[in-house]
Amino acid sequence: MQINKNFQKIESSYLFSGIAKKVREYKAANPDKANSVISLGIGDVTRPLAPACIEAMHKAADEMANAETFRGYPPEYGQDFLLEAILQNDYLARGIALDKSEIFVSDGAKSDCGNIGDIFSNDNVVAVCDPVYPVYVDTNVMSGRAGDKTENGWSNIVYMPCTAENGFLPQIPDCHVDIIYLCFPNNPTGMAATKEQLKPWVDYANREGAVILFDSAYEAFITTPGVPHSIYEVEGAKTCAIEFRSFSKTAGFTGVRCGYTVVPHDLKADGVELNAMWARRQATKFNGVSYITQRAAEACYSSQGKQQIRETIAYYQRNAKTIYEGLKACGFTVYGAVDSPYVWLKTPNGMGSWEFFDLLLEKMQVVGTPGEGFGPSGEGYFRLTAFGSAENTEKAVERIKAYFAK
Amino acid sequence: MQINKNFQKIESSYLFSGIAKKVREYKAANPDKANSVISLGIGDVTRPLAPACIEAMHKAADEMANAETFRGYPPEYGQDFLLEAILQNDYLARGIALDKSEIFVSDGAKSDCGNIGDIFSNDNVVAVCDPVYPVYVDTNVMSGRAGDKTENGWSNIVYMPCTAENGFLPQIPDCHVDIIYLCFPNNPTGMAATKEQLKPWVDYANREGAVILFDSAYEAFITTPGVPHSIYEVEGAKTCAIEFRSFSKTAGFTGVRCGYTVVPHDLKADGVELNAMWARRQATKFNGVSYITQRAAEACYSSQGKQQIRETIAYYQRNAKTIYEGLKACGFTVYGAVDSPYVWLKTPNGMGSWEFFDLLLEKMQVVGTPGEGFGPSGEGYFRLTAFGSAENTEKAVERIKAYFAK
Repeated sequence: MQINKNFQKIESSYLFSGIAKKVREYKAANPDKANSVISLGIGDVTRPLAPACIEAMHKAADEMANAETFRGYPPEYGQDFLLEAILQNDYLARGIALDKSEIFVSDGAKSDCGNIGDIFSNDNVVAVCDPVYPVYVDTNVMSGRAGDKTENGWSNIVYMPCTAENGFLPQIPDCHVDIIYLCFPNNPTGMAATKEQLKPWVDYANREGAVILFDSAYEAFITTPGVPHSIYEVEGAKTCAIEFRSFSKTAGFTGVRCGYTVVPHDLKADGVELNAMWARRQATKFNGVSYITQRAAEACYSSQGKQQIRETIAYYQRNAKTIYEGLKACGFTVYGAVDSPYVWLKTPNGMGSWEFFDLLLEKMQVVGTPGEGFGPSGEGYFRLTAFGSAENTEKAVERIKAYFAK
Repeated sequence: MQINKNFQKIESSYLFSGIAKKVREYKAANPDKANSVISLGIGDVTRPLAPACIEAMHKAADEMANAETFRGYPPEYGQDFLLEAILQNDYLARGIALDKSEIFVSDGAKSDCGNIGDIFSNDNVVAVCDPVYPVYVDTNVMSGRAGDKTENGWSNIVYMPCTAENGFLPQIPDCHVDIIYLCFPNNPTGMAATKEQLKPWVDYANREGAVILFDSAYEAFITTPGVPHSIYEVEGAKTCAIEFRSFSKTAGFTGVRCGYTVVPHDLKADGVELNAMWARRQATKFNGVSYITQRAAEACYSSQGKQQIRETIAYYQRNAKTIYEGLKACGFTVYGAVDSPYVWLKTPNGMGSWEFFDLLLEKMQVVGTPGEGFGPSGEGYFRLTAFGSAENTEKAVERIKAYFAK
């Protein structure tokens, strides 16, 4: 049997798994400091689930205990009650007309962002922002779509640098590309894009017959008026964009696993609806989401659930501000935070991003994510997340301030 | 952008989605009979979850309600407590030495059976039993590995007929193949394979450098001594086999979603461990299983959980016997049922399997699965499942007996 040789081209470990290993090793070598390590690294939440979600899970678990209310195989694309709640709240309420059959509930946006590649030919040219969420690139390396690794990145991938110089907004490629990954509010830079800034992308994609894979996992953090929560707020997006959404950052579901993907019926290639292709992919290689999880997701849209979730988001937004203001006050150049849980900072004195990672871990016991891990243009930058506890976040910022005040 | 054109080769709907649609249409057209339709079709369970699992889910949900005990991103390969329980109970207790790092917890065996294709080259020759669980074939069609549809099936797939003539045991191919899907106890025929019957397959795979993808989703139904519950009970399997397991049929988790896949470190190709490849695939395109679900799965291995699950399995086994004995008594030729929740029957009077499906639905309001849906050699056969309620199962058998006694 022949293995998929593309796997041999890729780094042996996923970025965040690699960082977790480094932290474990540091703790093992420094047991006296192990307990004081604060992670503002991986974008994992720390606040408990909303009481409305907990209540819904208990109720659903009890239903599973009784033959009359027991639920077997879930519908592959999501329970109707959840599809309805998503449709009403995330789309119709924002003036976006969609149909339930255009929404596919899944175990998370990471799975969908990775698996969506199944429906595209391997001959497509992929464009990604640089820096970028590693899943977009890694999954294309695995499928062979990325080509070979060169000193300028993967040979078949078009990189769109996002740096301080262009305000972290990618430039439209001056060549033809087929698949464009966009994530706004952005991971890792924390920067948002307005409707006006997204419109040329939609126009480009419609003109070139390209598809935009739009990751809006962080839309709940948007505070600036005019920043769209969905790509479908931009005219023309339904004929060129697939949207990925997650309950992970919105409602703290990182450990519960639920997200959804929107594939409009109007999005076609060679006369074929991509919606039908994704439906066939999911029905064949996926079996739906836990009933209990889907009831918890539904509860996010109840009036109580909404209120509770808003409070948690506000808590993280205060953390983002603490980091942003604190670092700014001690001389760092900082970005993001306003419409996002991420703070993106320039490393001091032109320090390398992994060098800064080591410094922060060893001298301050603070874990962040080196910009270079997100791509070559991330070199010289560093990501901190707002998902820690308020106490730890303040403590981490104090340590950084104290160290750099020296 | 170019779509994956292999999708256009495939039937537009997945077998069980297609059957569900037919049943919905029948009910709509015959509202007076809609309530009396009994489904022994799709292999979905109907008994409630074990109380031990329910209790574990409540406890886990409460942990998620509290910042001190809240759990974020699960480990991509499974929580340690669940890996440990699986290792101890499903492997070490049977004398199979494995390591936790060889076990990967997932949202279900269907996902894993489909996604495993990611780690293999598209040039491999695939062999499947005929009839067969449609996911094995459909996912290979999607990747392009199946070739083109001909009147003898897919051009690049080697079909291994399993019929009454060979006791439903496939013959070892007389040519080289690379990837061999085996499922025992078998879906759909309900037949089991002994260690002695599996040994030549392991020898063939080791000799030819092939990989066996072994689906043992139904192992909990084994009653015959000497029938192995795991492919690793067969000597030499660790260098050639990947095993898929599911909590769906064992513990009624069809609506909860949990399974696991075993990839031994000894399984290599071109000097590369397939374990490392699957680990990379899962870390990149999957984000682990709900904490609550994993606690429920762990509870299946507690002494209470085991006892409760055994009782449910026994309930379904009585159903299997009811169907098997009932149909046999009225002259049907029947197979399976002993080590499996499935009864496989020969359609009477050489009737086509879809014709028999229509007859059963229209005259007896009983839903089953036409053998032809599982592959050409399934023509003339029909599958009934034991997963209904005892009452409905008896009712369905009585209706069939009454009709054919005429």
